[in-house]
Amino acid sequence: MQIGENLIVPGGVKTIEANGRMVIPGGIDVNTYLQKPYQGMTAVDDFYQGTKAALAGGTTMIIDHVFPEPGSSLLTSFEKWHEAADTKSCCDYSLHVDITSWYDGIREELEILVQDKGVNSFQVYMAYKDLYQMSDSQLYEAFTFLKSLGAVILVHAENGDLIAQEQKRILEMGITGPEGHALSRPEELEAEAVFRAITIASRINCPVYITKVMSKSAADIIALARKKGPLVFGEPITASLGTDGTHYWSKNWAKAAAFVTSPPLSPDPTTPDHLNSLLACGDLQVTGSGHCPYSTAQKAIGKDNFTMIPEGVNGIEERMTVVWDKAVATGKMDESQFVAVTSTNAAKIFNLYPRKGRIAVGSDADVVIWDPDKVKTITAKSHKSAIEYNIFEGMECHGAPLVVISQGKIVFEDGNLHVNKGMGRFIPRKPFPEYLYQRIKIRNKVICWIVFNVLSSHTLLEP
Amino acid sequence: MQIGENLIVPGGVKTIEANGRMVIPGGIDVNTYLQKPYQGMTAVDDFYQGTKAALAGGTTMIIDHVFPEPGSSLLTSFEKWHEAADTKSCCDYSLHVDITSWYDGIREELEILVQDKGVNSFQVYMAYKDLYQMSDSQLYEAFTFLKSLGAVILVHAENGDLIAQEQKRILEMGITGPEGHALSRPEELEAEAVFRAITIASRINCPVYITKVMSKSAADIIALARKKGPLVFGEPITASLGTDGTHYWSKNWAKAAAFVTSPPLSPDPTTPDHLNSLLACGDLQVTGSGHCPYSTAQKAIGKDNFTMIPEGVNGIEERMTVVWDKAVATGKMDESQFVAVTSTNAAKIFNLYPRKGRIAVGSDADVVIWDPDKVKTITAKSHKSAIEYNIFEGMECHGAPLVVISQGKIVFEDGNLHVNKGMGRFIPRKPFPEYLYQRIKIRNKVICWIVFNVLSSHTLLEP
Amino acid sequence: MQIGENLIVPGGVKTIEANGRMVIPGGIDVNTYLQKPYQGMTAVDDFYQGTKAALAGGTTMIIDHVFPEPGSSLLTSFEKWHEAADTKSCCDYSLHVDITSWYDGIREELEILVQDKGVNSFQVYMAYKDLYQMSDSQLYEAFTFLKSLGAVILVHAENGDLIAQEQKRILEMGITGPEGHALSRPEELEAEAVFRAITIASRINCPVYITKVMSKSAADIIALARKKGPLVFGEPITASLGTDGTHYWSKNWAKAAAFVTSPPLSPDPTTPDHLNSLLACGDLQVTGSGHCPYSTAQKAIGKDNFTMIPEGVNGIEERMTVVWDKAVATGKMDESQFVAVTSTNAAKIFNLYPRKGRIAVGSDADVVIWDPDKVKTITAKSHKSAIEYNIFEGMECHGAPLVVISQGKIVFEDGNLHVNKGMGRFIPRKPFPEYLYQRIKIRNKVICWIVFNVLSSHTLLEP
Amino acid sequence: MQIGENLIVPGGVKTIEANGRMVIPGGIDVNTYLQKPYQGMTAVDDFYQGTKAALAGGTTMIIDHVFPEPGSSLLTSFEKWHEAADTKSCCDYSLHVDITSWYDGIREELEILVQDKGVNSFQVYMAYKDLYQMSDSQLYEAFTFLKSLGAVILVHAENGDLIAQEQKRILEMGITGPEGHALSRPEELEAEAVFRAITIASRINCPVYITKVMSKSAADIIALARKKGPLVFGEPITASLGTDGTHYWSKNWAKAAAFVTSPPLSPDPTTPDHLNSLLACGDLQVTGSGHCPYSTAQKAIGKDNFTMIPEGVNGIEERMTVVWDKAVATGKMDESQFVAVTSTNAAKIFNLYPRKGRIAVGSDADVVIWDPDKVKTITAKSHKSAIEYNIFEGMECHGAPLVVISQGKIVFEDGNLHVNKGMGRFIPRKPFPEYLYQRIKIRNKVICWIVFNVLSSHTLLEP
Repeated sequence: MQIGENLIVPGGVKTIEANGRMVIPGGIDVNTYLQKPYQGMTAVDDFYQGTKAALAGGTTMIIDHVFPEPGSSLLTSFEKWHEAADTKSCCDYSLHVDITSWYDGIREELEILVQDKGVNSFQVYMAYKDLYQMSDSQLYEAFTFLKSLGAVILVHAENGDLIAQEQKRILEMGITGPEGHALSRPEELEAEAVFRAITIASRINCPVYITKVMSKSAADIIALARKKGPLVFGEPITASLGTDGTHYWSKNWAKAAAFVTSPPLSPDPTTPDHLNSLLACGDLQVTGSGHCPYSTAQKAIGKDNFTMIPEGVNGIEERMTVVWDKAVATGKMDESQFVAVTSTNAAKIFNLYPRKGRIAVGSDADVVIWDPDKVKTITAKSHKSAIEYNIFEGMECHGAPLVVISQGKIVFEDGNLHVNKGMGRFIPRKPFPEYLYQRIKIRNKVICWIVFNVLSSHTLLEP
Repeated sequence: MQIGENLIVPGGVKTIEANGRMVIPGGIDVNTYLQKPYQGMTAVDDFYQGTKAALAGGTTMIIDHVFPEPGSSLLTSFEKWHEAADTKSCCDYSLHVDITSWYDGIREELEILVQDKGVNSFQVYMAYKDLYQMSDSQLYEAFTFLKSLGAVILVHAENGDLIAQEQKRILEMGITGPEGHALSRPEELEAEAVFRAITIASRINCPVYITKVMSKSAADIIALARKKGPLVFGEPITASLGTDGTHYWSKNWAKAAAFVTSPPLSPDPTTPDHLNSLLACGDLQVTGSGHCPYSTAQKAIGKDNFTMIPEGVNGIEERMTVVWDKAVATGKMDESQFVAVTSTNAAKIFNLYPRKGRIAVGSDADVVIWDPDKVKTITAKSHKSAIEYNIFEGMECHGAPLVVISQGKIVFEDGNLHVNKGMGRFIPRKPFPEYLYQRIKIRNKVICWIVFNVLSSHTLLEP
Repeated sequence: MQIGENLIVPGGVKTIEANGRMVIPGGIDVNTYLQKPYQGMTAVDDFYQGTKAALAGGTTMIIDHVFPEPGSSLLTSFEKWHEAADTKSCCDYSLHVDITSWYDGIREELEILVQDKGVNSFQVYMAYKDLYQMSDSQLYEAFTFLKSLGAVILVHAENGDLIAQEQKRILEMGITGPEGHALSRPEELEAEAVFRAITIASRINCPVYITKVMSKSAADIIALARKKGPLVFGEPITASLGTDGTHYWSKNWAKAAAFVTSPPLSPDPTTPDHLNSLLACGDLQVTGSGHCPYSTAQKAIGKDNFTMIPEGVNGIEERMTVVWDKAVATGKMDESQFVAVTSTNAAKIFNLYPRKGRIAVGSDADVVIWDPDKVKTITAKSHKSAIEYNIFEGMECHGAPLVVISQGKIVFEDGNLHVNKGMGRFIPRKPFPEYLYQRIKIRNKVICWIVFNVLSSHTLLEP
Repeated sequence: MQIGENLIVPGGVKTIEANGRMVIPGGIDVNTYLQKPYQGMTAVDDFYQGTKAALAGGTTMIIDHVFPEPGSSLLTSFEKWHEAADTKSCCDYSLHVDITSWYDGIREELEILVQDKGVNSFQVYMAYKDLYQMSDSQLYEAFTFLKSLGAVILVHAENGDLIAQEQKRILEMGITGPEGHALSRPEELEAEAVFRAITIASRINCPVYITKVMSKSAADIIALARKKGPLVFGEPITASLGTDGTHYWSKNWAKAAAFVTSPPLSPDPTTPDHLNSLLACGDLQVTGSGHCPYSTAQKAIGKDNFTMIPEGVNGIEERMTVVWDKAVATGKMDESQFVAVTSTNAAKIFNLYPRKGRIAVGSDADVVIWDPDKVKTITAKSHKSAIEYNIFEGMECHGAPLVVISQGKIVFEDGNLHVNKGMGRFIPRKPFPEYLYQRIKIRNKVICWIVFNVLSSHTLLEP
């Protein structure tokens, strides 16, 4: 297939056939964990399995999280992930690096990752007390340093201190099942951490990006903050956009456990509708999946203690169809915004644009022919993931990809994948994405000017 | 100048020189009154004078309001405006038609305007009691009919009943100067009407577009409504983005009177900052000028009675530079959003896109070379308008056009205009702009389904 | 029974027995319609029947609405109601007068009612187009005049123009059942009118009291306005605090029709919880019942057209127990606030305090012994009203009166009433209740001072 | 003076003379530091000097904060404060105990203080890193334990981690003056801590009381939380109600330093107006002074480093007159609410009611005759405090006490005090104030029921 002039679609969307099919840029899933270690196991979908599922859903690029086990250096872990992905990934990929501890020498490693390795985004943790959690002082330092590198600061926002206390209390009450996961991580603790993260970023004048926005209250805080100025971004995931946390009370333990992820899905069933509305009006900007499914056998480690259940849900394949079904097919969102929240915004924030996130000469030929009218029922029986269940089982969705083109080649058509292991390329990303840092730089100047000029001139007015 | 492939800028913004100058689509001023009649006079700037000022400010297209005097038919008025603009306008233009009364036979005229005359937007009035004001019942009917035509519904939102009462009260208190204009039209009356207009539109599931958003409270209501779903758009103007209503208390009557427009500028000096913030985060979408300046001599008709002062301010030339200065140069807004709020969004809402509002092969060659670093002091001494004052007098602005290209020809360069009277073309606009009506159509289906299916199935649950 | 010193309970609440029973002031139901005419019929409960039900529920005083049929004068209607109540009422009562049209000579009648007849509260209507509805201009005039009399302005807040349009549309869709009542009066139309009423009152600096707050959005607007200053009061009723509008879709027509009242109950089932929360934190202040039940036979007039169904629900007997059950027994509200919202606040707003609304020497001996632990199931089988159904049928409530004392006599004990027809007295009310008008007067001065001093001094700062 | 029946004023307010003077309960200042140690010094006003000032302002009771220096036990410190106050205080007093560290054995001491010593309120610190600051885990534990004792949990809400970082940054920028105090403690850090404190309290279902509410954003968070249910209380102080933080930029170092307190006054000059509005509508409930003035010589320790300036402002004498002037005399607040926020609410929250906070037989005879019309200019020249400056210098206030009666004796009249050192009594306070704990207890039951019943029944609905 040739990408020629007649496919140039500056706005990102073009209806090419009378029957309403559209040509759109391939999706970008900004949040996957295809190699996350937990207690010596890894999730069921590796880079091969996971990216096949991604492509089948219309996603032609992923940004996976490197997750260094405490004690491992960031650099070593990065190389390990890089190698695994290079040999297995079927679609283009890039890597975030998670900062699971703030150790001596980390600054040097971060510099190398940013300057030599093509990584411009790092995730910090406000939860997982005594494991990955950072104190406010450390967050302040980390944000300050990451800003100086021109990085995108990703935040896992939950209050880990309070979760630890609540887990203890819930276990003492004799609750050990998956509902304990939801009870010990109420959405207030997510909202609190989001508020705090934004407060810190606002002091430092750095951009802050909240991964996995799971609740209405967390999303509302992001929306409110944006009006006041801070450069805040929020990423709901397939799960929070498509289902809810009432399932933690399922009598079927395996089903309930399948939904365990952090922050948890909210038990409030109006959550997906609200998150889709905020995505439609631009208050949330990006969608990921947080794809990291563990088998029921693996989840069963936490059979007698919900705090031990490995965390992660599926969603890499369902992401685009869920957003279409819940937001576009309900009239909340128009097609341009659909392209923005599934692809273009991610490309801009993470400095992949204009190589990714649009269809044009000069961009990568990652293209999807989308059928708004196709109706598909999600089921583990036919999904491409290796996991034996699907948290969206039985959900009937409108809108699905007909043809998926990656690097100019048709990789998915008529329900069949045409891929080779390792055909995906690593896409390095430069620091200081203009979409974020242009405003940051201007604000830096404005702030300095206020502190030194306005305030001192203010002094002159006083008696 | 040749617009070739190498200028294709899908995102709308491209830095073309090392020194930071940008090539952007020409601005679209969606709100001008270059031929508005008032008591036998017309404002100082006609289509020739006004569009010269527009071009000098980087605006290459205007949408002017046809304002039928009560008694005149919409069609006749439209033809009058069309002719005047055709012979005088120096830039491309299109026409809104204001509905100044809701008379028998208007439906037929509206149909002709939409189907044969290239008009797809109409303004209704909630103010000007006993003149142009429509009751809620009439608004409901008008909205319903205009939706059926696929039109964009523009609303002048102020509560005319209450204004009439307040004017009487203020005059009885002995206040006759321009401050009476502000006192009798407090921003609460603007906010109230915005709330009501949105309520009506929400019942009918039609898009609604608020012209001249002048106050924080009105803007906040728009922002809030958008989260809940209604297709609401808000248009602040140069004046509300760049200055405030404290000037109504100026001891200099001529100066105070120059600011008289409706809704009035808010006396709250934090207003411009707030409106620019909402523009930056997407809660407001479009900018106009409401350009309609009357000379001091004309304004003096209301010397002894503020209700007689002809309404209108300047702003056609200053619009883009004011937005740059207040929003971009302060770090609130990035360059893409600047292009969106000065040009692209207007093109999409009013169905001019992709002919206008972007730079690409196939689009009109209306292009501006913008210099972010240019600093210019606004003054009546050098502006292109024929008016003898400038409400932004002395304001130092960052960001200005260097070169302006209209229809592929350089029309402004080095501070000089190269234009001919009447070189501007009428740009007809088709109904049912996809940017608005695609979602409207989907919602229509969803609502029907809810009313007939969900609710009746709900019935089955009852005892 | 002797009210002596040992019963003085300044805070209004005193536990008098070890088992948790409390002595509280008798309840005041501020909103009843015990003689409302509709199409030649009147509701089932007259002053005798209705006040017996009131007493059985712990309410020792009512304020009934005089409802002049268009064409009748306010004064004549007042006398008619006065006479009926005098001969029938079993508890003390007072009278609001509803202004069902704004006619010549009404000012004189209002003056007489205020100065000679003991009426200080009047209800205006924003709904019932072409019947009782007033335009914004009329509301402005009425508010201004009523303020000059020192009256409390009650508002029935719904947008009548839009309701009329919606009714037409819904009927045209073929919907004729009680669900059409809810569909044609969506809560947005209540919220809109509340917003508008507050805007008007705010211009005039007069107190405004919203009767029958039925929806979350209306209540939220009241709550928000209060923070900004206007003297706004909101009165949810038994129905909106205890049940919801999903019943309009009941397959049982008689049941669905029983819930028809205006504004309608909201179909959002989270409404009662929200209204009780706002009552608990003081954002809503008073509770009424709007008691006006029509028999199923009477309701059946509207069998084929929901707009004809007589409007009104029961609630006079259930009010206090519903508030206790939903707000106090859930831990939202403390006992003092219970007394405030069921009795004291009403006494203060309507200038009955300290004669009513407290227990003390010098106050009327209207006292209730309340049992927080009593559990009662509401049912038409045992209620005191003459109506054959109960909209709260089957609701199990915590908290009920044990003994009710009116005018120092035990009138209800062990489930039995001890009353005589006509034993209730008319309680006249003086204008300018200090609770409202003290602040109004101060604000009048402050506003004048701002207009004349601050603003003119502001002028001095201008060039 | 005899308090007889004719003085019984259940509502708390009674006009006793034609000229508008009122008899109200003596004020209660819930937040004073009359013996706070700092670097070996103590503030200028001790219990003698400070309570004289209190009485002259209409305050007849204070609750002082025992502030154990780290290393001292709570009990020892309590005894020290008790003794000092007993020998010096001229008005009745009670004692809060500040928890300046969370050490082994503290639980036993807290139990003794609550059960034997008459202390029912304890303050914890979210600021002062490495000194008094507690982590979220510690706060959770402390809240849980204090709730089990039936105590009132007071919180100093500022984010200490971030303040420490900001102080470092500001000092590195070369800013050493008092403006650095404001710059390093922006109101966002207060709001953040308030939000977090409420989140914690909400998990535990305990009441939480924010001392020194200094900013609009902190107050708004309290107001919002109250609607959702948590038992949250907010205490603005004289300083935040009467002045603002622009003074930190005064060229006069001594003046600027006089305003140093934490959280700092907000530089936003609209703050006092907003806090008074929230106090008027009940969103804030109590007023204190945080009185703790250090002399300019003492403040000068921080001459070269703002972090060293001893913290504390005056306000014990000005509190009631400032609230009257800013809230009542502007028409925001009525007289009942004035009594509530200066006296009654404090009495209820801290379990002093009905002994304090009302005028009635059986209550202490602490009474103030208040003159709403008296106009007084605040000045250091005539105030009763020993401090040489007054942060309200020159402020003209409406409303002042004419006569102050403490324990039935006139202690202030015609501007003269009639007091003896040590005449004030210690007022012990019992735990589990009904005003807070009644609802807490009910909610505990409701929550348990939800966790065990609703949720498990929910399980039954699942497949």
